[in-house]
Amino acid sequence: MWGIIATWRMAHDGVLAAKEMLAADAFAGDAMETAIKMVEDYPYYKSVGYGGLPNETGILEMDAAYMDGTTFAIGAVAGITDVPNPIAVARQLSHEKFNSFRVGAGATQYAMLAGFPRKNMLTERARRIWEKRCEEIAKTNLSPYDGHDTVGMVCLDQNQRMTVGTSSSGLFMKKAGRVGDSPLSGSGFYVDAEIGGAAATGLGEDLMKGCLSYEIVQLMASGLTPQAACDKAVYGFTEKLTQRYGKAGAFSLVAMNNQGQWGVATNVEFTFSVAVKDGVCGIFMAKPGGNQTTVIEPITQEWLDAYEKRIKAPV
Amino acid sequence: MWGIIATWRMAHDGVLAAKEMLAADAFAGDAMETAIKMVEDYPYYKSVGYGGLPNETGILEMDAAYMDGTTFAIGAVAGITDVPNPIAVARQLSHEKFNSFRVGAGATQYAMLAGFPRKNMLTERARRIWEKRCEEIAKTNLSPYDGHDTVGMVCLDQNQRMTVGTSSSGLFMKKAGRVGDSPLSGSGFYVDAEIGGAAATGLGEDLMKGCLSYEIVQLMASGLTPQAACDKAVYGFTEKLTQRYGKAGAFSLVAMNNQGQWGVATNVEFTFSVAVKDGVCGIFMAKPGGNQTTVIEPITQEWLDAYEKRIKAPV
Repeated sequence: MWGIIATWRMAHDGVLAAKEMLAADAFAGDAMETAIKMVEDYPYYKSVGYGGLPNETGILEMDAAYMDGTTFAIGAVAGITDVPNPIAVARQLSHEKFNSFRVGAGATQYAMLAGFPRKNMLTERARRIWEKRCEEIAKTNLSPYDGHDTVGMVCLDQNQRMTVGTSSSGLFMKKAGRVGDSPLSGSGFYVDAEIGGAAATGLGEDLMKGCLSYEIVQLMASGLTPQAACDKAVYGFTEKLTQRYGKAGAFSLVAMNNQGQWGVATNVEFTFSVAVKDGVCGIFMAKPGGNQTTVIEPITQEWLDAYEKRIKAPV
Repeated sequence: MWGIIATWRMAHDGVLAAKEMLAADAFAGDAMETAIKMVEDYPYYKSVGYGGLPNETGILEMDAAYMDGTTFAIGAVAGITDVPNPIAVARQLSHEKFNSFRVGAGATQYAMLAGFPRKNMLTERARRIWEKRCEEIAKTNLSPYDGHDTVGMVCLDQNQRMTVGTSSSGLFMKKAGRVGDSPLSGSGFYVDAEIGGAAATGLGEDLMKGCLSYEIVQLMASGLTPQAACDKAVYGFTEKLTQRYGKAGAFSLVAMNNQGQWGVATNVEFTFSVAVKDGVCGIFMAKPGGNQTTVIEPITQEWLDAYEKRIKAPV
């Protein structure tokens, strides 16, 4: 068996590339890194990598993590700048026994010393979106925070190796040095190759209140299917957080177990991409279905066309 | 009922202060912050706050977190510099809905804008220890990383409110921007006031591989006593990590449930301080006892005298 599941429509081209690699017996980590890099490199995906949206000062600060489900090795970066592929930096850090999670200037310094290329990650388009947003906020007293789409992936290869990875430019207009869930073990991601893995997207401040990726992996360990585990964790915690904190932000999780079974749950409309051996391959739309269930439907061509138009619309 | 449990002997004076406050009906958050500040302020505790040990470049970078078990609100900082009480900054950040985890220069900027005082946190003694270590490493090709004692506390007040907090200068000689488990929800700390809380100290890189604080809280939720939960999580993961990663670093966890019952487990010799209403109050030594058990003994006057001498010995 092999398989890969990833957050958001933007992951799909990468998932297709990873699918070919997995079918040809590639290591899960290589397939997943290839897929995440494709999202990071594509300038029209405005929440990850090149063309991602900057913090309130106009600087693109990125978060990423890589975890190996066989060894539990983790590498992570937060608030890294000027690096084309944060996922590759995170992966390299996962080989370190010490200092494997680096933030801010120290993260960028690590990447430079390790020979990663340097790149101004702010596109002309992202700069225009940021400037426009600054003007809107100044005029309308709007809450500045509404974009936070992380690419998160769980990958299983033919040799039962599993990896998870995340990459994000974080909350649009965030304060300098703000960190979300994406680089945080247990919240943004977790994987145990003897069980399965999960990855998250959404409001990081709320995801870390519930350690939802770890929770889903533990629920799978207790015998739940990935879908039942996602449903229980996501809807249970949405309810608990609403009662106890007053409100639950938007969040969505994807999971896959070491048999290639997968699941998704979300408290908002959420697209994802999945491919498994001899099975499903495509982009789907997930929504909460009531009673702790998730409704999953294939994406329509109409939705895809509107998406394509939207991400390339003039600013 | 009320109670407080904290990692390491260094926490004890703060625990005694918190005990008085809790007996007088103080909020858990206030008692705990008072206790952690006392550790941060004492110059001879060389792994937390003032007098803490710097990173490899001689800069004291600190990590801290605060979590409210009623609302799940979390505030955290990593790689913050020049601030006397990182725990107070973390607590103030816990009131923010967005941007509540700040790292690096952004964390220090937040503290400055919020009006926290600025202080050079490097003592003459810490500078001498650092210089000596640099020389030793240059001469002997030693692994530079051996100190990483976080103060972590779990606190329960008379109104069933619970909080956890952590503060640490992190791994001695760490690379710039290295982050450990202390500011990471689920790894360094977690609390749910309807269940209980846990906090960790040890090698952060390994603690985040197991999300041990969250795991202990979930084990308590499943009905285990804090001691049974700590034993199961700590010894189970030490074994799993040894098998899968090759080696498990040193780590120790403390936990308390919302009845004031407490527990501790550790894979090394480890001191802690605990105080509960009408019950125990003191410093104890914990060690692994074999068969997933922990041996806990009162600390001896001899040990305390040797400790006092050691932390103030000429450098």
